[in-house]
Amino acid sequence: MDQTTSLLTVFGSEVTGTAILILLGVGVVANVLLAKSGALGGGYIVIIFGWGLAVFAGVYAAAKSGAHLNPAVTIGLLVGPGDTYATGVPITVASTFTYFAGELVGAFIGAVLAWLAFRKHYEAETDPGTILGTFSTGPAIKSYVDNVITEAIGTFVLVYIVIRFGDTPTMIGPLAVALLVVGIGASLGGPTGYAINPARDLGPRIAHALLPIKNKGASNWGYAWVPIVGPIIGAVLAGLFAHVAV
Amino acid sequence: MDQTTSLLTVFGSEVTGTAILILLGVGVVANVLLAKSGALGGGYIVIIFGWGLAVFAGVYAAAKSGAHLNPAVTIGLLVGPGDTYATGVPITVASTFTYFAGELVGAFIGAVLAWLAFRKHYEAETDPGTILGTFSTGPAIKSYVDNVITEAIGTFVLVYIVIRFGDTPTMIGPLAVALLVVGIGASLGGPTGYAINPARDLGPRIAHALLPIKNKGASNWGYAWVPIVGPIIGAVLAGLFAHVAV
Amino acid sequence: MDQTTSLLTVFGSEVTGTAILILLGVGVVANVLLAKSGALGGGYIVIIFGWGLAVFAGVYAAAKSGAHLNPAVTIGLLVGPGDTYATGVPITVASTFTYFAGELVGAFIGAVLAWLAFRKHYEAETDPGTILGTFSTGPAIKSYVDNVITEAIGTFVLVYIVIRFGDTPTMIGPLAVALLVVGIGASLGGPTGYAINPARDLGPRIAHALLPIKNKGASNWGYAWVPIVGPIIGAVLAGLFAHVAV
Amino acid sequence: MDQTTSLLTVFGSEVTGTAILILLGVGVVANVLLAKSGALGGGYIVIIFGWGLAVFAGVYAAAKSGAHLNPAVTIGLLVGPGDTYATGVPITVASTFTYFAGELVGAFIGAVLAWLAFRKHYEAETDPGTILGTFSTGPAIKSYVDNVITEAIGTFVLVYIVIRFGDTPTMIGPLAVALLVVGIGASLGGPTGYAINPARDLGPRIAHALLPIKNKGASNWGYAWVPIVGPIIGAVLAGLFAHVAV
Repeated sequence: MDQTTSLLTVFGSEVTGTAILILLGVGVVANVLLAKSGALGGGYIVIIFGWGLAVFAGVYAAAKSGAHLNPAVTIGLLVGPGDTYATGVPITVASTFTYFAGELVGAFIGAVLAWLAFRKHYEAETDPGTILGTFSTGPAIKSYVDNVITEAIGTFVLVYIVIRFGDTPTMIGPLAVALLVVGIGASLGGPTGYAINPARDLGPRIAHALLPIKNKGASNWGYAWVPIVGPIIGAVLAGLFAHVAV
Repeated sequence: MDQTTSLLTVFGSEVTGTAILILLGVGVVANVLLAKSGALGGGYIVIIFGWGLAVFAGVYAAAKSGAHLNPAVTIGLLVGPGDTYATGVPITVASTFTYFAGELVGAFIGAVLAWLAFRKHYEAETDPGTILGTFSTGPAIKSYVDNVITEAIGTFVLVYIVIRFGDTPTMIGPLAVALLVVGIGASLGGPTGYAINPARDLGPRIAHALLPIKNKGASNWGYAWVPIVGPIIGAVLAGLFAHVAV
Repeated sequence: MDQTTSLLTVFGSEVTGTAILILLGVGVVANVLLAKSGALGGGYIVIIFGWGLAVFAGVYAAAKSGAHLNPAVTIGLLVGPGDTYATGVPITVASTFTYFAGELVGAFIGAVLAWLAFRKHYEAETDPGTILGTFSTGPAIKSYVDNVITEAIGTFVLVYIVIRFGDTPTMIGPLAVALLVVGIGASLGGPTGYAINPARDLGPRIAHALLPIKNKGASNWGYAWVPIVGPIIGAVLAGLFAHVAV
Repeated sequence: MDQTTSLLTVFGSEVTGTAILILLGVGVVANVLLAKSGALGGGYIVIIFGWGLAVFAGVYAAAKSGAHLNPAVTIGLLVGPGDTYATGVPITVASTFTYFAGELVGAFIGAVLAWLAFRKHYEAETDPGTILGTFSTGPAIKSYVDNVITEAIGTFVLVYIVIRFGDTPTMIGPLAVALLVVGIGASLGGPTGYAINPARDLGPRIAHALLPIKNKGASNWGYAWVPIVGPIIGAVLAGLFAHVAV
């Protein structure tokens, strides 16, 4: 297939969509956890619907690039049986890195916007762990091997089902992937906070490191590789499995 | 495009739809917060689904005018790249103010109906802050600049994604905007109560000022401009961004 | 339109659909409230999704009769501008009473099935108010006028929006009315328990009176007319409003 | 209809879909109940959405075999009025047992994957009842007759409505059955944990018996027949009722 969507369009589309995804995704954790928020104590059900609907909004914003919003999705499509990333976007080295760049830049911007929306609540929050927890994921029980496995399994489900969406025509559009993300959060989110998306974790972690937040602590860079490597492993396995699965 | 839907139809449609939106929207906060309600303590998850499904019902009721139900949506379409407000309704000064008038009148009527449905519970409620909180929004931490920014960001997401809906055809109809509002509530609602709609806040605030409620206090008019100005800024930015975004 | 769907089919369809509606609707209240249930304390959010999805399932079961499942819907269509109750079912005295009969019989059967599913939990429950609360609705604050108004407003929203569904084509089918019922529960359920359906209240109340439940008390027949009269008023108003609304 | 989908394809499809169903289904219970999980205390609403969306994901993964994922669905279609299990899969003895085998194998694999994702949390959990509760169902009040009835009623609703889906065309695809399962969980889940699927209970119970989990207790084989027999009875009744219902 010819390149009919420019890489600049792909980049802009992924930046916008991922920024909205992360604005709402970092936002929901801030909303439920930060001091004095009106939604304080909203609970896990709010978190998982917030993240799922963050995907919902982000996908609409990134229609022109197929709305990956996630390097793991890009990698899954790269490894999987298809030959395009979206209508008019063939799989090439250049398009691959355009997706990665757009996703990471968008995630960073989204985290900054979320901080802006909750600036006074970040000021009011005194627990550095809570502050970091609104930006990036961390393990409930630290164990690198297990944390990688959990992230890989969650990402496998995400990427494999996204690849399979085409087999079952519906007209619910972005709602399908939104509900899939609600489901993965409900079922597999507890051990590692379900990054299932390297940009989702890295972009906000960089923002956490750079933003002037009074009571923030370290950005826990020692863990930062886990929500990158785990999702990449899961995405590669999903792409490979899509070749062999019936 | 010619004017084929009369402005009277637009007005009636927006009044009906916004009245149902605000009946159910003010209703859900009353339901969860007012003394002796069977839903007392239902929590934030009930609030966000209640508001989202209030939009869902309202949109069905206002099909003939394109169901703006919100001056911010009207402004976003005014500024954005399109040239109609709905099928058969061109963008003119007269149609713009017809939408604004219908939205504000409808919001007032909806708040009165919600009060009627919960009259005994308003009588039983002794906290003036809770009573006002069922009608209008207020900040968790008062800071005009931050509150305006939060409202602007939330409204930007609402209006920009509504403009983008057309790029991704689905058949879920009003459910898309309903879920978008659930998501914005989940993710950005805590700091200011997510008015993201000037009529949603002003109409019920007027109703609060006028209705005979035993233990009500002041209507906090000092804050009333924030959920008007913030959403207008967000809507203008969303309309402008729709011109330049890929 | 000719009668091409027999009244026996209408009756059977409404009995089946309403039985499933009430099995799941009485079921969700039993599930969340009765002693020793694994879902004890699930909260209001479970209640409103349970009732909404009870409608969802019931509508699929009653496709052949247009799935009224509710005398208020039948009355709304009778009063409203249409001239059929469903494809192949013209509005006549006979068809009207066939719907009413099917709805009431179905509601009774559904309540008996729910009791059967929770029999041991009804045995374990010692509070008569909780037992009655699983079957029928009651007011949070007793005030006949207000309770009728609240039921009328909730039913108006239900019936009016159902009549308006046709103006906005979607392909989500029974999900639309299911979400509408979730929304009405979220927003207007607290004062009276949102019967918004005379059969939903009367059928289970009769079942409560007849079933052998150890610790049950009186069936509160003094209130039984409210969730009949309120919904009828709301349905008539909705049907009339559909004539005049733009 | 000719066999155009091979039994190997059916087997692989059902294994994959049921594995994803049970990974997410066992996962959500582990997520909400196991020690130190970030989702600990998420509550019943998370459980029911988790299971419903587990079905959602599993159905997409098993499109080629019609996504039974549940011997009760297979039995309902066997007894019911149709003559195929899916497009290209006629009802035969061989295809029936291929479904059963795929469903059971998939359920076992899914439970092992869920254990892998939560390995450290299983290690940290000290209550054997909680550990078993993440894998298999059990009664809130032990009473074999009642437990079988509750499972039969829940499964009847599931299988009967699935058979009826075809009467009401929509374009929401797997979301319909997902929401149906959310609804059955909301309304009928408390007494027995709503297996409503023999493979869902038996596969994970075998996994519980075999996996090396430090503080696990017995696998409660004395109850294991209930979530097999109850669902079979419900499925047979649903299939029979589909013959006679209008």
